[in-house]
Amino acid sequence: MSKLYVVGIGPGDQENMTLRADRALREADVILGYQVYVDLVRERYPDKEFRTTLMTKEAERCRMALDLAQAGRTAALICSGDSGVYGMAALVCELRGETIEPEIELIPGLTAACSGAALLGAPLTHDFAVVSLSDRLTPWETIERRLTAAADADFAIVLYNPASRGRPDHLRRACEILLRQLPEDRLCGIAQNIGRAGERTEILSLGRLKDTPVDMFCTVFIGNSTTKLVGDRLVTPRGYHV
Amino acid sequence: MSKLYVVGIGPGDQENMTLRADRALREADVILGYQVYVDLVRERYPDKEFRTTLMTKEAERCRMALDLAQAGRTAALICSGDSGVYGMAALVCELRGETIEPEIELIPGLTAACSGAALLGAPLTHDFAVVSLSDRLTPWETIERRLTAAADADFAIVLYNPASRGRPDHLRRACEILLRQLPEDRLCGIAQNIGRAGERTEILSLGRLKDTPVDMFCTVFIGNSTTKLVGDRLVTPRGYHV
Repeated sequence: MSKLYVVGIGPGDQENMTLRADRALREADVILGYQVYVDLVRERYPDKEFRTTLMTKEAERCRMALDLAQAGRTAALICSGDSGVYGMAALVCELRGETIEPEIELIPGLTAACSGAALLGAPLTHDFAVVSLSDRLTPWETIERRLTAAADADFAIVLYNPASRGRPDHLRRACEILLRQLPEDRLCGIAQNIGRAGERTEILSLGRLKDTPVDMFCTVFIGNSTTKLVGDRLVTPRGYHV
Repeated sequence: MSKLYVVGIGPGDQENMTLRADRALREADVILGYQVYVDLVRERYPDKEFRTTLMTKEAERCRMALDLAQAGRTAALICSGDSGVYGMAALVCELRGETIEPEIELIPGLTAACSGAALLGAPLTHDFAVVSLSDRLTPWETIERRLTAAADADFAIVLYNPASRGRPDHLRRACEILLRQLPEDRLCGIAQNIGRAGERTEILSLGRLKDTPVDMFCTVFIGNSTTKLVGDRLVTPRGYHV
């Protein structure tokens, strides 16, 4: 039976890939993905065929993967982080629709909320909300509404896609929305290039975060009202008495 | 230098563990954890010393791990899922406080939001909120406030700890709160015993979810307003035109 794996490879370094993702990529004949992600795995699987598409060509990439699998090749479509969190899993399912072939196996991976949190400390030990600041596919009003609701209910918040070349000021706009409800000194963190060259973290206040430049390889964390610094780590307590 | 790894082992089966978690457990002299989780890894690391504590003895378990590392042994404290999502990472940091020894390395793992989502399909491809229904350490009013805010802002929602022996009706109470804003036919999913014996998923309406018995090994997913069935999978589209 023809097969397509949709694989979350984690944040970048192969160490943070699951054993299952590794096995799927070894089994695959052809590995597809956005160029940056393909480059992260190319060395580990030197005998594979690779296909890449541009960043905004997600549907094209998924169709190519489905077509290759349909034609009898074992294909693996890779996503950074988790294939199910802002990844290609949903789109692959939608494009295949109600048909039975090819078989699709969805393989989760470490999403940046989890890998970035571990670099900063433990900011997500209690309830949290994940919001993408990309308005390419989502109206900004929806993003604003979700930020407001998450801050109002004292969720820790993780921001994906805090900036890109076309929207360099989205993080500033998000911070301004959050600052309507949250104090300037609310603890925040940035994890950049997680598991890749140039990996870096920074812990700072929400007030300072507003004026901090970020790029598309940053994940941003906003603490909840209990988040604190312990040594050099950002920690949101679960509530145990210590 | 003395070392303590705080390791998220993923949902259960070793296949969903990261290469990095596997390496840490191989390096460890002693592996500590709640009995159920230790049993999940015992076979893979037969030459290790294992220490277990009861479920509610989290602080005791963390102190034991810190003491062993402080005494010069390489210790690995394991958590199911991700060590940073309702796991022990924060508590270990808090208990160690400002001291430098032992060195702590936080190793993230696949949390049930991600592993469960992949079993059901792709319900978390857009913004989502994660809420624990356990009121052991959190006032129920806080839980209710977060559920209300998440539903109001059209987040997909993941519920951890939807029930336990002492609180069998928490999922029903949560559904009643959600149903003040969400329709009865909102699509939901349950992932049970993810990666373990008895693994099972179910897709159902919010109205039906309210009357469905769950246990502490279930993770519950509430779709957002766009979540749909594609074949037999629960899918929340990112918004691509297909």
